[in-house]
Amino acid sequence: MQKNKLTTKRYQIGNPYPTESVIQKIPLENSIEQLNDFKIHQSKEQVSLQRKLSPETAMYGLGQNMGPINRRGRKFRMFNMQARPQTPDCFAVNGPYSFLIIKEADTYLGILIDCPSEINFDCGFNNQKLLDITIESSDLDIYLINSSHLKDVLQEYVRLTGTAYLPPKWAFGFQQSRYSYMNAEEVKTIANKFRELKIPCDAIYLDIDYMDDYKVFTVDQKPFPNFSSFVQEIQGQGFNIIPIIDPGVKIESGYSVYEDGVKNNYFCKDAEGNDYIAAVWPGLLHFPDFLREEVQNWWGDLHKFFTDLGITAFWNDMNEPEIFYSPETIKKLQQTASEMDYTAWRDLDPIHYKIKMDSYMLNSETYYPDFFHQTPEGPVAHTKLHNIYGFKMLQAASEGLLKLNPNQRYFLISRSSTIGANRLSGVWTGDNHSWWEHLKLNIQMVISLNLCGVLYCGSDIGGHCGNADEELLIRWTQLGAFVPLFRNHTEKSSRQQEPWEYNVQTTQILKDTITLRYALIDYLYSEFLKSRSSHLPFIRALFLEFNDPSLDEINDQFLCGSSLMVAPVIEANARYRNVYLPECNWLFWSASAYNQDNFQILKSGTHRLAVKLSEVPVFVKENELILLTEPEQYLGELEKKEASLVGLVTGTANFSLYYDSGSKINDNPGILNIKIRRNGASIDLEHDLIIGDTPITYQKISLKIFSLSGDCLRREITLK
Amino acid sequence: MQKNKLTTKRYQIGNPYPTESVIQKIPLENSIEQLNDFKIHQSKEQVSLQRKLSPETAMYGLGQNMGPINRRGRKFRMFNMQARPQTPDCFAVNGPYSFLIIKEADTYLGILIDCPSEINFDCGFNNQKLLDITIESSDLDIYLINSSHLKDVLQEYVRLTGTAYLPPKWAFGFQQSRYSYMNAEEVKTIANKFRELKIPCDAIYLDIDYMDDYKVFTVDQKPFPNFSSFVQEIQGQGFNIIPIIDPGVKIESGYSVYEDGVKNNYFCKDAEGNDYIAAVWPGLLHFPDFLREEVQNWWGDLHKFFTDLGITAFWNDMNEPEIFYSPETIKKLQQTASEMDYTAWRDLDPIHYKIKMDSYMLNSETYYPDFFHQTPEGPVAHTKLHNIYGFKMLQAASEGLLKLNPNQRYFLISRSSTIGANRLSGVWTGDNHSWWEHLKLNIQMVISLNLCGVLYCGSDIGGHCGNADEELLIRWTQLGAFVPLFRNHTEKSSRQQEPWEYNVQTTQILKDTITLRYALIDYLYSEFLKSRSSHLPFIRALFLEFNDPSLDEINDQFLCGSSLMVAPVIEANARYRNVYLPECNWLFWSASAYNQDNFQILKSGTHRLAVKLSEVPVFVKENELILLTEPEQYLGELEKKEASLVGLVTGTANFSLYYDSGSKINDNPGILNIKIRRNGASIDLEHDLIIGDTPITYQKISLKIFSLSGDCLRREITLK
Repeated sequence: MQKNKLTTKRYQIGNPYPTESVIQKIPLENSIEQLNDFKIHQSKEQVSLQRKLSPETAMYGLGQNMGPINRRGRKFRMFNMQARPQTPDCFAVNGPYSFLIIKEADTYLGILIDCPSEINFDCGFNNQKLLDITIESSDLDIYLINSSHLKDVLQEYVRLTGTAYLPPKWAFGFQQSRYSYMNAEEVKTIANKFRELKIPCDAIYLDIDYMDDYKVFTVDQKPFPNFSSFVQEIQGQGFNIIPIIDPGVKIESGYSVYEDGVKNNYFCKDAEGNDYIAAVWPGLLHFPDFLREEVQNWWGDLHKFFTDLGITAFWNDMNEPEIFYSPETIKKLQQTASEMDYTAWRDLDPIHYKIKMDSYMLNSETYYPDFFHQTPEGPVAHTKLHNIYGFKMLQAASEGLLKLNPNQRYFLISRSSTIGANRLSGVWTGDNHSWWEHLKLNIQMVISLNLCGVLYCGSDIGGHCGNADEELLIRWTQLGAFVPLFRNHTEKSSRQQEPWEYNVQTTQILKDTITLRYALIDYLYSEFLKSRSSHLPFIRALFLEFNDPSLDEINDQFLCGSSLMVAPVIEANARYRNVYLPECNWLFWSASAYNQDNFQILKSGTHRLAVKLSEVPVFVKENELILLTEPEQYLGELEKKEASLVGLVTGTANFSLYYDSGSKINDNPGILNIKIRRNGASIDLEHDLIIGDTPITYQKISLKIFSLSGDCLRREITLK
Repeated sequence: MQKNKLTTKRYQIGNPYPTESVIQKIPLENSIEQLNDFKIHQSKEQVSLQRKLSPETAMYGLGQNMGPINRRGRKFRMFNMQARPQTPDCFAVNGPYSFLIIKEADTYLGILIDCPSEINFDCGFNNQKLLDITIESSDLDIYLINSSHLKDVLQEYVRLTGTAYLPPKWAFGFQQSRYSYMNAEEVKTIANKFRELKIPCDAIYLDIDYMDDYKVFTVDQKPFPNFSSFVQEIQGQGFNIIPIIDPGVKIESGYSVYEDGVKNNYFCKDAEGNDYIAAVWPGLLHFPDFLREEVQNWWGDLHKFFTDLGITAFWNDMNEPEIFYSPETIKKLQQTASEMDYTAWRDLDPIHYKIKMDSYMLNSETYYPDFFHQTPEGPVAHTKLHNIYGFKMLQAASEGLLKLNPNQRYFLISRSSTIGANRLSGVWTGDNHSWWEHLKLNIQMVISLNLCGVLYCGSDIGGHCGNADEELLIRWTQLGAFVPLFRNHTEKSSRQQEPWEYNVQTTQILKDTITLRYALIDYLYSEFLKSRSSHLPFIRALFLEFNDPSLDEINDQFLCGSSLMVAPVIEANARYRNVYLPECNWLFWSASAYNQDNFQILKSGTHRLAVKLSEVPVFVKENELILLTEPEQYLGELEKKEASLVGLVTGTANFSLYYDSGSKINDNPGILNIKIRRNGASIDLEHDLIIGDTPITYQKISLKIFSLSGDCLRREITLK
């Protein structure tokens, strides 16, 4: 196979809006005639790119879209929307990353389209043999990244769009949420229960009901009297309080955010130049025009309301933006309703009325042509700039928080995102359901988001909508324990879903699973830091690490960093799990509790493994290691003196543990390097320590090193 | 293990409505105190039954409900409804069979509840350790069937509820449908295309647009002029025309069905005793009161309209009944719309208006309390008798058709069904989607329907709603080739889905797959006859044939009769398939074309098998055989002289082929028995023929008999 060196080319059509999705300037190609092997069609309003697909071509990327990680055979509409419910034919979701990796026999081609308008990717849906990309704009940048190596393409994508967002280390702890914990007493009860039952937890979320009448940057004093001392009390127990922030600003005279916004012309305008009115949770409201720097500055500064209270963690929701309706459409609906005539079927009949109604209500897209952003070129309809709205809100928050707390990491996750958001914020995958199908989807979404540079992400464990039964919650928590954002969340009409809400056995399994996560947290955090600094995914599809064409289709197993593979149970009542182990031997750990010592050597190939309800099958790669420590109740509770390393070593294993403050932005990590070389029945050991800004706390590291025959050698390393 | 003999007990509470679901009279137990280990709670309106579940308990049955065949951990609402879309949390679907099989360590307990009202089964959803059944009525019969053997329980269920519906043999051919083929020319084009491309096909469906203004038992003369000669022409080409029949009768003066119904008081009444008015496809209409014998007779006789034209095949749709709206609710909606006020959030706001709207429109259930059936005890609200409405419509059709064509089998499938319908009609599983998830669901639904006595069933191949890509249609057709009802169907807004609508390669694969079905059709039909006469499922879960507790959770493999296991590919882009082979050795056939000779011996255990897009993995059980013949273009086209038998024989294989006229009701089948005994490298052969009412056409049968080493012996049997 001839190896292609990495090449990156940038092509421009028209006069693209400066999205800031791409931050690395690279020179423009003179001509777009030679756009690799794409055919280009241009019209005034559209550009389309077409390319033939061979039977073997696989395609990856496109962010958190629905379906398998190999995008072949499906179509995707890159248009930021909260799909609800997330059924397999939701073509538009709220993490559209217009970055597609095309895998041919001997080469990888990444195509990144930088354009804030709608983009449609037909990856062989209408015609199995054709990739058809249609951009609803004639102003855009196209980047083509070509290499024989997939990792080259991914790293180049990160160089273009920015190094992944790094949250504080506590963000790797367990997080508890609900729409909504309705008052301070409820939050206190939840917090106390975690500590009482010794279930580790690092964060509790506040959903929309903490606000005064859904007014952003306010707190309702009635359910949350003395908010400041409430925050102090909860955070004093080792939790972080994470309030929700929505973009819409309620129209209410006397409300300072509203009045400042109006006075300074910060809001999006309607066609007549008046502040555009829509309705979301607070009723009628305006949307900040986040695309303008002065609006971003204003919005960023508003976070002082919270940072003054010691809150530095936020989730940005409804920021596609989602719209419930507008006053105009309600008037039209009332008119149509009065004309509705059930005797005149097929004209003004009730079914057609309902169809019209459904297009007006809770269908945000209807409204996007009606409001405008102010740009240097004059007002531009939201539709044309839609995909970056959430990203621009994140930019505002990010810059504001960095100004308010210099050199301190902030916590920020978002429902809406697009290319560029990967460097500013984490992502949760929106309003999923308590469906087994969505547990599996969770795996596919975090793999694909990681391919697009979003390393800190996860889905609502247990499902946002609907009711999780015990088994689903257990299996989903087992999956979540290996995903960066580890959050249990559900909505108002769902049953209570905190770890103790089922029965004693379930509580114990959930506690053991969460505790296992905390035992692995130094390993996971270290692998996250390494993935991030090497510009590679943290949650990795198997095809990223192994050269085996049959891995393209594995959608239910993933790697955490480079050593650990996870094969969560994804089916109800399953007591067996089919697992495919590529290439090498693996150390199989049917993990239920962190201190459980049931390792087993497995050869490469397909295995049908017995798994108890309490167990999640994890696998350590041959000649790689994982590190376990004493679990904490929350990050920073203990000064950890001891750790243990476990692995199957048949040749040489090089393990590096990265560690840092977990909270500072510019923090030079320390690195502990350990090298293990098998020497017959024995092993040779070396280690060295590269000192960073933060000292290591470990004094002793115990090693459990397995050989292929299953024998286990135990050794110790003493530090300091 | 102590073996329990089969015992069946019947308990009665209150004064049950005579549903005719159960046709076998068995004596009543005197007391319901000792209802096995169920706890009973009774109130005036409800009966609930509760039973503890051990961790190992599995539960099967409940008809075509959503989710895995082991019902443990889920809840189900037995209330006949078209779930649309069929998402995992659709608790009510349109095949509610209140027959649940509870598997304990050493016994099987079947519980059958005979009651036409809503019944809720919580199979460990709210509480993992509790089965909780709630019947929304205090008048019911309960049957408890107990045995150490699952097959005993299933056979007893069939004895109680009746032997499965037997369609004409052509019903095992391929069937093509669409909502709708809009006119005679379109149907002719479709028919000609099948014959021209030599893609076998036995039936073409007419969906609602063939009717004159959606009036049942009419044909629209404009698109279908000379309907009689049109039918003759199409049926002359070897197709059966299958028109749709809906229950609602359009209100239109001069329309004889409407006028007769009004005159004779055949329609359901409202609370004031007037004919109840609702709206479905034809606009305003009345619903026949199918629960009354005179209405059934009338409705049955109406089929003469079609049988006079030579049409004996029908599909009954919308027969839950589905309701779009009523005039009263539209008036209420108009009133509410005019009062809607977007300034008064949280009261008469638009979101609450939408919620109200959604509860009125296309939500049939809203209307069920508003209309009444006439019973010997006076009028009873539809809600109380809801689950049998579709069944009673089927009874009307079935009896009418038997009267119109004595001793001839009719073809009838239904969307709505319940216990009892299993002996009258087949079932298609309603309005599914073009989702891979629904391909898998298809397997689960046909397995569970078969457990409830519905042997002739299937799902819309390609998906009713949405657009199937080529790969999905291919994989779904490969599954469908082994399911009794083998129908390609899709709806109005979906892309064309006939086998030639994609590309040349796809057409070829679909043609090969359909042809394979026709090569197997004598085997499938014979196994169907045997399953039916032995009162057992035809599509069988693996746990029915093998004693391996890990089979409870296998949801994606199934047996067709006793010899053949199928493991369809259920994931996009998959070129490998994990398959679990229980207990014995298997002859693996990666089937793409019927005359392809690529057999392979596999041992029991887990295998990851390579499968091309054109291939479906099927497996012949050790010491069982399958029979293949020359494929026809439609059933009865050829007089088949030759057949071949294939199998892996290590000991003794006994094979019986059943054959009959394929069209008569009372038809004594002929049986060809073949016995093969392995004798070292050779085999011993015996055969005998039991003559039935119809002569066998085969003159020569070729045998391909494999040994464990993969050697193949060829032999021939000459008949006559």
